[in-house]
Amino acid sequence: MNGNGHTFLSKVLKIVEEQQSEVTPLIQFKHPEELEAILDLDVTKAVSDAELERCVRQVLQYSVNTSKAIFRNQLYGGTDPYGLSGAWIAEAFNTSQYTFEVAPAFTLIELKMLQHILKLFGILEGDGIFTPGGSISLLYAVVAARFKAYPGVKSQGMRNLPEMLLFTSEDSHYSIKKAAHWLGFGTESVRIIKTNNQGQMSVKELCSAIQRERDLGRIPLMVNATAGTTVFGAIDDLEAIAEICQKFGVWMHVDACWGGSLMLSSNQRSKLKGIERADSISWNPHKMTGAPLQCSVFMVRMRGLLHECNSASAQYLFQQDKFYDVRYDTGDKSVQCGRKIDAFKLWMMWKARGDAGLSKLTDHTMNIASFCQNAISEKPGFRLVTGVMQCPNVCFWYIPTFMRERQEDEQWWELMHKITPKIKELLTLSSQLMVAYTPVRHYKNFFRLAFTFHPVIQESQVLDMLLAIEECGEKVTLQML
Amino acid sequence: MNGNGHTFLSKVLKIVEEQQSEVTPLIQFKHPEELEAILDLDVTKAVSDAELERCVRQVLQYSVNTSKAIFRNQLYGGTDPYGLSGAWIAEAFNTSQYTFEVAPAFTLIELKMLQHILKLFGILEGDGIFTPGGSISLLYAVVAARFKAYPGVKSQGMRNLPEMLLFTSEDSHYSIKKAAHWLGFGTESVRIIKTNNQGQMSVKELCSAIQRERDLGRIPLMVNATAGTTVFGAIDDLEAIAEICQKFGVWMHVDACWGGSLMLSSNQRSKLKGIERADSISWNPHKMTGAPLQCSVFMVRMRGLLHECNSASAQYLFQQDKFYDVRYDTGDKSVQCGRKIDAFKLWMMWKARGDAGLSKLTDHTMNIASFCQNAISEKPGFRLVTGVMQCPNVCFWYIPTFMRERQEDEQWWELMHKITPKIKELLTLSSQLMVAYTPVRHYKNFFRLAFTFHPVIQESQVLDMLLAIEECGEKVTLQML
Repeated sequence: MNGNGHTFLSKVLKIVEEQQSEVTPLIQFKHPEELEAILDLDVTKAVSDAELERCVRQVLQYSVNTSKAIFRNQLYGGTDPYGLSGAWIAEAFNTSQYTFEVAPAFTLIELKMLQHILKLFGILEGDGIFTPGGSISLLYAVVAARFKAYPGVKSQGMRNLPEMLLFTSEDSHYSIKKAAHWLGFGTESVRIIKTNNQGQMSVKELCSAIQRERDLGRIPLMVNATAGTTVFGAIDDLEAIAEICQKFGVWMHVDACWGGSLMLSSNQRSKLKGIERADSISWNPHKMTGAPLQCSVFMVRMRGLLHECNSASAQYLFQQDKFYDVRYDTGDKSVQCGRKIDAFKLWMMWKARGDAGLSKLTDHTMNIASFCQNAISEKPGFRLVTGVMQCPNVCFWYIPTFMRERQEDEQWWELMHKITPKIKELLTLSSQLMVAYTPVRHYKNFFRLAFTFHPVIQESQVLDMLLAIEECGEKVTLQML
Repeated sequence: MNGNGHTFLSKVLKIVEEQQSEVTPLIQFKHPEELEAILDLDVTKAVSDAELERCVRQVLQYSVNTSKAIFRNQLYGGTDPYGLSGAWIAEAFNTSQYTFEVAPAFTLIELKMLQHILKLFGILEGDGIFTPGGSISLLYAVVAARFKAYPGVKSQGMRNLPEMLLFTSEDSHYSIKKAAHWLGFGTESVRIIKTNNQGQMSVKELCSAIQRERDLGRIPLMVNATAGTTVFGAIDDLEAIAEICQKFGVWMHVDACWGGSLMLSSNQRSKLKGIERADSISWNPHKMTGAPLQCSVFMVRMRGLLHECNSASAQYLFQQDKFYDVRYDTGDKSVQCGRKIDAFKLWMMWKARGDAGLSKLTDHTMNIASFCQNAISEKPGFRLVTGVMQCPNVCFWYIPTFMRERQEDEQWWELMHKITPKIKELLTLSSQLMVAYTPVRHYKNFFRLAFTFHPVIQESQVLDMLLAIEECGEKVTLQML
């Protein structure tokens, strides 16, 4: 056996700090084959600690420094350093969250965080669980909705049940399709409802779609409302959707994976009015709020439902003849057996900052996004895709000078569709900015800058980002496309 | 905002080392209500760094030190320090594993580890993915098997499909029931096959059960064979099961979450002969091998199947007009969107130790389990449940002196059923050992000591564990039961 791993552990902070220093680039992009040729990844033969350190540093040198302000490629960014401290401790204590006996304090912390979060979301008597991400939280929601409607599904499956439908907006996250496949509904059971210009689900269309399916004898099972769509950051009219769900007796789930963080601020919270009426909610503190990946909360209004729905009562783990109160063995609520103690890192962040600290970070994030939106609306060559901003997403095109005087016909838009990815390429290769781009509906490829709590971003940094886009945008020529 | 989280991060190693030192107990057990009263968990108001440190230390003081040799409560234990280093780096780099652009080096590392592991398991042309644990790996397996049999299920769901059955042994892990519920089969679609005395699935019964269901017009979809059952560590006869699956055209999955680690040693590997014929395999390096939680590999024989089965082709993430080879955007194979880079910590462990180092740890683990088994077979008052040992699980009763001369009738066994948990209680409260107990089939509550790679355990430590059991066992009186 080789070296002393404990010595290596003491070097980790230094390695991380050096590889994430101010002078290290955001990204040193290499194409896959190039990078394969550079990195020494083979594990067949043991290497010394010194050699391992060299290999690790090389891997990190070619990795993306997501902790930099200019990493704006996804709906996450840098981590909260208190959250990271919690993550490191959690890894070191290597605890699985199924029974009280192996995770006594961590079990209480999960329960405490769930209580605090449920209260924040206006659910007074609820339950919840931390899951490995928003897509799996959505699986929990659909399974719970189906079980509530047809408890027999647990033992007898879907075979003899009527056709059940899941309603979602055209701008909602794609995980609903994966859920429909995995859980046995099939993607054709997902009914896509149009959105308005701002990206909010059309409540009128939702209502008539539910009515139509009922008339055809099908079962509208769940409405998957979104609080913070992936691209535009739109928040559906949750109050109106709650009304419809109540009227038709349909399960209301709110995918607040992105926008749920706005609940942390009393200045922002009203945008999600109606969420307190949801049957279930998912929120990912690992997105905007900066908890280290993974940290996702699934909430449900009905106490006891998660356990009733998901329990398998394994004898070897959830023995009923233990010497303590086995109601604290919470693991049978989960579809997982072993489960990370993700609540702990969130607890550390929250304890360090308090409700007020997280509220301030929320407001700052929205302010910086507004600043960006305003700057873009005034800068020549930049054009916003939508005017309204609910979450800290700013969507826009950059139109290079040579395009500005041309007529904006179909061909022009096809060029813009190619120009956006080209600018992104130049930004990435020059390590100035990583920013998302995408088409949505009839909109051709545009940029999305989304803002997060960490690192705390200043206005001057936003102006630098826009400057970088402008510079790279002006380098694009027709010949490149 | 409060304090400086970065300063806190630099204290983590010290906090962890102090809370996990040789003099800290394995566990200071408090009942849930007592512990709630002790811990200061409220997060409403921000606290100073010093106060946070106090609270964190208190949480850790009442947490279980899973890194100690005497933590033998589950199928995991201490972490490999190289793996922990990898986990810390992964958390600090906070990377999601969906696209090459945000995770270039980590994507290549996942691919490299999958190649290396597939080869080790004898699958020459396969694919795979790291998942959040064995239960979710099993969901992947059932979804893949169903999609292979009925590709239309992805769009049309289970409604119009014939009744499909999942075969598993009575000693297999309970996650198959949760999978059957979640994926829309229903738990009644799980056919439980008897095991022999050693806990291996009866191949004869499997064969006749499949034949019987086919005769009744039902579809035998998958056999869930186990390589390393949870309690006895039994390995099903994979070669014989492969024959049956081939004969009937049934998907063969091997749940090697526990026993898969034996593949690391050429001395142990033959116990899993036939695994190379499986259609899919799950293995959890976070169990025996000591990768920090979570680290689970799902493997599938058919290249392309995972992508075809699970892809949703989200436009905003998996754009086809990127400037690099988008075949390296591997995230659409996953049911998750954001996904942790779990392969990296395994890569660091493997790189540090090489194939040979991991092989030695495997052999040592099996040797120490054999030593334990032998010691138990010779010690007065101890009695083995099964004679054969395939994985490093040792299952036994401790029979206190006052019980030894009595007749072993039904009443006697009912007493033993209560004595085992009582000994466990005394062991836990005195912080001498955490050990699992359970009934299985007709066997009344017995102990399971399971061994893992870390910390590396010496024979004297095993004898101390048995001594502790004996001591606590002798303290049990009839009045306590």
